[in-house]
Amino acid sequence: MLDAIFNPKSVAVIGASNIEGKVGYSIMKNLKAFVEYSPDNKVYPVNPKYSKVLGFKCYRSILDIPEESIDLAVIAVPAEYVPTVLEECGEKSVKGAVVISAGFSEVGNYHLEDEIRTIGRRYNIRIIGPNCLGIINMYNRLNASFSKEYFKEGNITFISQSGALITAVLDIAPLLNLGFSKIVSLGNKVDVQESDILEYLIQDNTTKVVVLYIESIKDKKFIDSARKLAKVKPIITLKGGRSEEGVKAISSHTGSLAGDMQIYSAVFKKGKVLTVETFEELVDLMHLFSTQPLMEGSGLGIVTNAGGFGVMAADSCRKYDLTLPDFEPSTVEKLRKYLPPTSSISNPLDLIGDADTDRYRHALETLIEDKNINGILVILTPQEMTKPLEVAEVVVDIKEEIERRKLSKVIVASFVGGVSIKGSKSYLRKNGVPAYISPENGVEVLSRSYKYSIMKVQEDDCRYLEDIRSQLMEVKEENLDTIKELLSNPNEYNSKRFLKLHGIEVPKGYLVKTLEEAEYYGSILGDVVMKICSRYIPHKSDIGCVVVKPEDVGETFHRIMERGENYLKERGIKGEIDGVLIEEYIEGMELIVGGKRDKVFGPVIMVGLGGVFVEVMKDVSFAIHPITREYALDTLRELKSYKVLEGIRGRPKRDIDFVVDTMMRLGLIMELYPEIREIDINPLFVKEEGKGGYVGDALIIIEDEGYIGTEMGSRKYNR
Amino acid sequence: MLDAIFNPKSVAVIGASNIEGKVGYSIMKNLKAFVEYSPDNKVYPVNPKYSKVLGFKCYRSILDIPEESIDLAVIAVPAEYVPTVLEECGEKSVKGAVVISAGFSEVGNYHLEDEIRTIGRRYNIRIIGPNCLGIINMYNRLNASFSKEYFKEGNITFISQSGALITAVLDIAPLLNLGFSKIVSLGNKVDVQESDILEYLIQDNTTKVVVLYIESIKDKKFIDSARKLAKVKPIITLKGGRSEEGVKAISSHTGSLAGDMQIYSAVFKKGKVLTVETFEELVDLMHLFSTQPLMEGSGLGIVTNAGGFGVMAADSCRKYDLTLPDFEPSTVEKLRKYLPPTSSISNPLDLIGDADTDRYRHALETLIEDKNINGILVILTPQEMTKPLEVAEVVVDIKEEIERRKLSKVIVASFVGGVSIKGSKSYLRKNGVPAYISPENGVEVLSRSYKYSIMKVQEDDCRYLEDIRSQLMEVKEENLDTIKELLSNPNEYNSKRFLKLHGIEVPKGYLVKTLEEAEYYGSILGDVVMKICSRYIPHKSDIGCVVVKPEDVGETFHRIMERGENYLKERGIKGEIDGVLIEEYIEGMELIVGGKRDKVFGPVIMVGLGGVFVEVMKDVSFAIHPITREYALDTLRELKSYKVLEGIRGRPKRDIDFVVDTMMRLGLIMELYPEIREIDINPLFVKEEGKGGYVGDALIIIEDEGYIGTEMGSRKYNR
Repeated sequence: MLDAIFNPKSVAVIGASNIEGKVGYSIMKNLKAFVEYSPDNKVYPVNPKYSKVLGFKCYRSILDIPEESIDLAVIAVPAEYVPTVLEECGEKSVKGAVVISAGFSEVGNYHLEDEIRTIGRRYNIRIIGPNCLGIINMYNRLNASFSKEYFKEGNITFISQSGALITAVLDIAPLLNLGFSKIVSLGNKVDVQESDILEYLIQDNTTKVVVLYIESIKDKKFIDSARKLAKVKPIITLKGGRSEEGVKAISSHTGSLAGDMQIYSAVFKKGKVLTVETFEELVDLMHLFSTQPLMEGSGLGIVTNAGGFGVMAADSCRKYDLTLPDFEPSTVEKLRKYLPPTSSISNPLDLIGDADTDRYRHALETLIEDKNINGILVILTPQEMTKPLEVAEVVVDIKEEIERRKLSKVIVASFVGGVSIKGSKSYLRKNGVPAYISPENGVEVLSRSYKYSIMKVQEDDCRYLEDIRSQLMEVKEENLDTIKELLSNPNEYNSKRFLKLHGIEVPKGYLVKTLEEAEYYGSILGDVVMKICSRYIPHKSDIGCVVVKPEDVGETFHRIMERGENYLKERGIKGEIDGVLIEEYIEGMELIVGGKRDKVFGPVIMVGLGGVFVEVMKDVSFAIHPITREYALDTLRELKSYKVLEGIRGRPKRDIDFVVDTMMRLGLIMELYPEIREIDINPLFVKEEGKGGYVGDALIIIEDEGYIGTEMGSRKYNR
Repeated sequence: MLDAIFNPKSVAVIGASNIEGKVGYSIMKNLKAFVEYSPDNKVYPVNPKYSKVLGFKCYRSILDIPEESIDLAVIAVPAEYVPTVLEECGEKSVKGAVVISAGFSEVGNYHLEDEIRTIGRRYNIRIIGPNCLGIINMYNRLNASFSKEYFKEGNITFISQSGALITAVLDIAPLLNLGFSKIVSLGNKVDVQESDILEYLIQDNTTKVVVLYIESIKDKKFIDSARKLAKVKPIITLKGGRSEEGVKAISSHTGSLAGDMQIYSAVFKKGKVLTVETFEELVDLMHLFSTQPLMEGSGLGIVTNAGGFGVMAADSCRKYDLTLPDFEPSTVEKLRKYLPPTSSISNPLDLIGDADTDRYRHALETLIEDKNINGILVILTPQEMTKPLEVAEVVVDIKEEIERRKLSKVIVASFVGGVSIKGSKSYLRKNGVPAYISPENGVEVLSRSYKYSIMKVQEDDCRYLEDIRSQLMEVKEENLDTIKELLSNPNEYNSKRFLKLHGIEVPKGYLVKTLEEAEYYGSILGDVVMKICSRYIPHKSDIGCVVVKPEDVGETFHRIMERGENYLKERGIKGEIDGVLIEEYIEGMELIVGGKRDKVFGPVIMVGLGGVFVEVMKDVSFAIHPITREYALDTLRELKSYKVLEGIRGRPKRDIDFVVDTMMRLGLIMELYPEIREIDINPLFVKEEGKGGYVGDALIIIEDEGYIGTEMGSRKYNR
């Protein structure tokens, strides 16, 4: 169906206009090229006010167009008329609609948006927009938008939630000679989402690189669609609204609700989407990915006529995880022939201040043969003997030789200067060699390419996950009543029993209500921990309601109960104390593992090492359910503190499999029990490798139950 | 004396040439402007081969010049002739020399460098270089260099260790309309160092911003000179060779030894030097600081005609610690008059896609009156109704109004696009408004200005430091023999006694050599820790030679001794075991504090929280001796883990004064005992506030003694 939008034969422009400056005029003007491109392509302006628009016969209504059906309707009428117009489109069997008109959810008109969604569904019309700039397909000269005209066929498809970014990219495009396949302005996304376009692009032969600007994602399918597409084409994304400040700006901007950036990071990682942080990076990578192969190893060769800039580039390699390999002996030998005897043949290769064009040519011709080198950064400053434009021509020659011989090496330039290098820089850029003012930028961009090349879509070995799922489904079925009871009062004791039922180990423990019970179980358990058990007492250790290894169990029971009762009384809280939880004393490395439910993406699992790592370093990592073993491990490996789990400096390795298993189970639990809003395990005690671990404290929050407040709190996520 | 170099009346060019392409020709050509500038300015070429050079009478030797003395000699003869030439300069009472010639330490000719240093000292000639590009003073048109010609008077002085960076900056300068006071290429720095120039610039009225490119600093004075200058003028520095890769590139480049980047960071911080990481940043900040006041608060106002870019800029505020304050009520009121009724008046201020020049003008005129706003970022994308050049003119008008009214607000622009905004961007830049392709860059640069404005040179309240110094000097004097003995065998026991003598508390403990002694002291001390005591046993806990709270002190004594002896025997180490150290058992928060001696900057003190913070997070901070209380505190506050010391989540605050005191004492100890190469205290146990702390383990390494290897190791610093 999307094909009718990008490759229509007939296009109706509803709200076409003869008045310059009006959107309906710009669209008609932009569509002229489409008609000129092929005699089969038809454009029909619709507007009761006109008999002709820009030379085309104009119709009162789409229904008057003398064709049985219309492929694409471009709608640019005031928002309140859009539903009526869309109804008529339905009657005319329109396949796709691009709604340019603004005035919908971004100004609070949610009902209008619902209405057009419903109409679209009823008539099976795919809708792009509303509140968008339109769409462009460069290959059939279809510019169904009110952006300025720019046609250059190429391999980039750019999808943007913001029209202004499209305007900016199209304005930069001529300077970089950027070519596009398609450009899509998604606007408020009432129907067509990023995921629809991504899936459409899998088969689209003219698209080789997909670039996204996203403010919020509205459908869970995004992850799967991105993973499918990423197997064949790189996806580069800039996410607007990463911070609270940004989110504030978004909500006054498009009325969409931006999600938690940490969750988005997890989504992009799972979808194998390469993310950038600035518009400049977006353009840089768009240029690099559309003109050059991926950098398939970390080895960078630097060629420079200025030692100082070589130093800076080398510094950046360290920062961005590229390496400066030694040259092969044959490279060194060849270079020695061409370079002055005083120059030292090493990487960075200093061609010295008096380097001429030939010296650059020889150096580059030699380096592309060196198998230690995956990418080349050519640095130039405008010295006396240097002819920047000539060197630029050499660099472009080399780039073309690389292409011709399919050497799979990347080459970028950093010509540092101003007036003397302007021409050479634009020559480079127009010929597919990214050029930067700063050597550091060159290194950074190449490192992104390298890091992308080693990202891999996890092949989903779901067997273990499926095993646990069946097991937990059985548990649910067989224990429905017990589970219902436990979740009706999810205090620590019940939360732990619930988790234990689902295969997550907890310490041996009893909920006691009397001194006698306490003393009895105390004598059985040995060293114990005693805690108040009540959903109404958060921060229980702050008020002395947690006692580790008490000397006198009975006396401790009384003290804890008394303190708990006082706490409730002082605050006038009408809530029950369920008793005192008496548990065997457990030691182990402390982790924090939690699950929360994202409105779009469903269960999200957080993991981190406990204590200072979470509290001071905010070192946590997120995974989106469903979580395979490999994926859970990858998520753990992202932690800066992962090394501690592996056992640093002679300390024992911890049972990482137990942590993985717990993460997977938590995800499944949240899938199987949609009434659970949040689960926190803090701490999760992890024993040495092979020895498992135990839930130290647990909390389950039930949907719609409201936040009661606990030791751990859901604030953990909102950092 | 440096004034003779920058403001000479007479300049001799030794090695002047008539052959184009030769350095001696370029220098002469560049000096023409100097002679034309004033009839008092004299240039004398010197070269036995010529009678005239570029129209000037040429002399066989500087001694032949018919003046009594010469202010400045520019020397461009082959390296081996430089000493002779310099001798002649001495006889001619030359005051300053710029040695352009290469071929010195950078190719291994250290003796030649020593020679000219000696000659310079003998005749009292200040020498810049060798191996440099030369120097420029824009205000008297003195271009004593072989760079290309560029004269524009301005307020920047640029000092660079790399000539290529000067070439690049001068090539960019016309595009940004950058004006300079002086440009100095320092080369190998045989005599004149950065510090000399910095001190000279304190009084230099034409310099308002000082920009440095440094690869290595050779004199300790740098810190003091920078602090003095920073009180009156900002100093911006790019340090090449931050990483190992970079250092490798430097050593093949200038033959200078780059120092540890962490020490440099501490040096720059102590000197109140603003550091940047890339050349692009250097140019951006040079431009900003030379055209605009400092941003004196964190409040940024963003004005945009593209919501998406407003979002991105807002994101960046968060990242770079700027804030987006609410506008004052009066601002909101005024804005409402000028903006379309649908636009929401908030920060970022979205002027909406159809914003025209007037809307920008009204918005900016209003914002500069708002006292919540310290800086303004003007974002523009080339939309239909927008005229970029007109808006640029408005921005420049506003900038000039700010200047006229001395409003101390900063304004920068981010015009995002390509072809449509080229002209407007260069208009902005030429008129003192930095303009960036990416809104994020604009925010980043402003944040640097803001952060610089709140950096302060610590006023040196040295009284406490001086007190400790006198106290320690007395200790040294009164205990010379004991100290000599302790340092002759700095095992853990002696190291601790040494530290205790100097006022750093250690646990009560005894070095025991027999079972009986062990049992006797064990009975006195209560809970104890027992460790082998020998300089020859590193990693003593790995081989079971540390026992905490032993049940049976006697048995433990035997076990530890046996293990220690076996260790030495197995490895064939001929070294003594001094006994077993039996100490009272101490608890506390574990820190690591160490001192090492830097060849240039002297004692450097490292501090960090122990355990995972050091091992996994590499969270350590450095201070350069001498360390005042405030400075020690600042150094501690740089730790990510500082919050832990302050007591997070209800845990007690630690005795930060004790840590500060220990840092200060360690610095002084290293000053008073130059034979100590390194001291490590790991752990330093820190008690609760007011309760001090204890040295858990200590190690002293004596200069020239070689590395024996210890539990902690000096590797800690080399990260």
